[in-house]
Amino acid sequence: MNLILLFCEDFIAPFNEDSTQPLQARLTDRRLNHIQTVNNACIGDELRVGLVNGKIGKGIITSLDNNACILDITLVSSPPPALPITLLLALPRPKMLKRILQTSAAMGVKKIVLLNSYRVEKSFWQSPLLKAEAINEQLVLGLEQAKDTVLPEVILAKRFKPFIEDDLPTLALNTRKLVAHPNATFQSPMISNEHTTLAVGPEGGFIDYEIQKLLEIGFDGISLGPRILRVESAIPVLLASLF
Amino acid sequence: MNLILLFCEDFIAPFNEDSTQPLQARLTDRRLNHIQTVNNACIGDELRVGLVNGKIGKGIITSLDNNACILDITLVSSPPPALPITLLLALPRPKMLKRILQTSAAMGVKKIVLLNSYRVEKSFWQSPLLKAEAINEQLVLGLEQAKDTVLPEVILAKRFKPFIEDDLPTLALNTRKLVAHPNATFQSPMISNEHTTLAVGPEGGFIDYEIQKLLEIGFDGISLGPRILRVESAIPVLLASLF
Repeated sequence: MNLILLFCEDFIAPFNEDSTQPLQARLTDRRLNHIQTVNNACIGDELRVGLVNGKIGKGIITSLDNNACILDITLVSSPPPALPITLLLALPRPKMLKRILQTSAAMGVKKIVLLNSYRVEKSFWQSPLLKAEAINEQLVLGLEQAKDTVLPEVILAKRFKPFIEDDLPTLALNTRKLVAHPNATFQSPMISNEHTTLAVGPEGGFIDYEIQKLLEIGFDGISLGPRILRVESAIPVLLASLF
Repeated sequence: MNLILLFCEDFIAPFNEDSTQPLQARLTDRRLNHIQTVNNACIGDELRVGLVNGKIGKGIITSLDNNACILDITLVSSPPPALPITLLLALPRPKMLKRILQTSAAMGVKKIVLLNSYRVEKSFWQSPLLKAEAINEQLVLGLEQAKDTVLPEVILAKRFKPFIEDDLPTLALNTRKLVAHPNATFQSPMISNEHTTLAVGPEGGFIDYEIQKLLEIGFDGISLGPRILRVESAIPVLLASLF
């Protein structure tokens, strides 16, 4: 946790960014635990904080015990720039999903579509990790790691064909459209600042039909070369190779 | 497992790559289990195999039951090219170490030094995951994922100063020497095919003294920008940004 992410309900007085009163936040959950056991912080210490979807600043500890930590908050600077990407990801297995959500949030992805695909096990869609709170928990961990505040949007697309045919053309309009696929005839990724829609298949890859559907609506195939990487490594590699 | 890695002891007759006799391998361990439960393979099926530190080819199943799988092996092509890198890595926490070894092996790193640093918890050095067999197990998983056969070398450097002063100058001789450090004054990574020695610090980073020691022997600092990534994401990002 390189930044403590604050939510409006953490503020003692109703949160108002334009208020001339100093802002005070009161933390009682895992963030309190982190302040005590990892930061080993005490009264007067300054910690990096950020307001969810807002600015970054500092919190000075004015009170700290086992029940709560109270911080005087000053918010001054903007969060780091986002990556201009929509990540279209075949739903990974739940354990991997946690890390991928964290990594994607940490790297600055702001829109993630979790997509069904032929090779996605049906049971993955039943995972409690797909509940909004569980997804948010992983995203928050990623933001805290990367000192960002802006929560990504996560969309669940449980049916491949309707999503690709009805939603994706609009979603990907005027963006560079790429699908990562282990196939030597595909081109290598290129660095660009262009807004990009990047599709990444499941373990074992998209099936031919799915690739075909993506190519039909204007996606180009890219390959990372002969090595097949796990999705959790392929995503950082792809993001680093594209921007 | 995108490739079944074979070891000399898997071969029924003593292994001799130049033999005119067909090669036969007999598998009884987790690879047998994988062939049965993941590949759902049966007699006559062809699977991708590779000989450790050797060539890649195919294995045709000639016998398969719950005790063993016997394959006729043909080895024809070279493994994918390695990355020209020596990875100098502050010893990560054990759970992360497993994934980092897998990812590094999958991406083609062939030399990894696990290094002590002020912020490495002393207990990490006691982990059973640092035993040679445990390290090899993770490396093999990475090779199997990436369809590679060449086992990386892993060196344990339990003392920072003697390693940096006595061993590193020789190890890093005539290589591009880089240390990743979250500091805005450091340059961004540059793509190159030059052989590179890349140092990556622990959670919380190398301390100033350690950075200074590395700079003194010719390392240049590189930064990935304002976002702090976990080591397991930073490594794929760095490798993708450097080569």
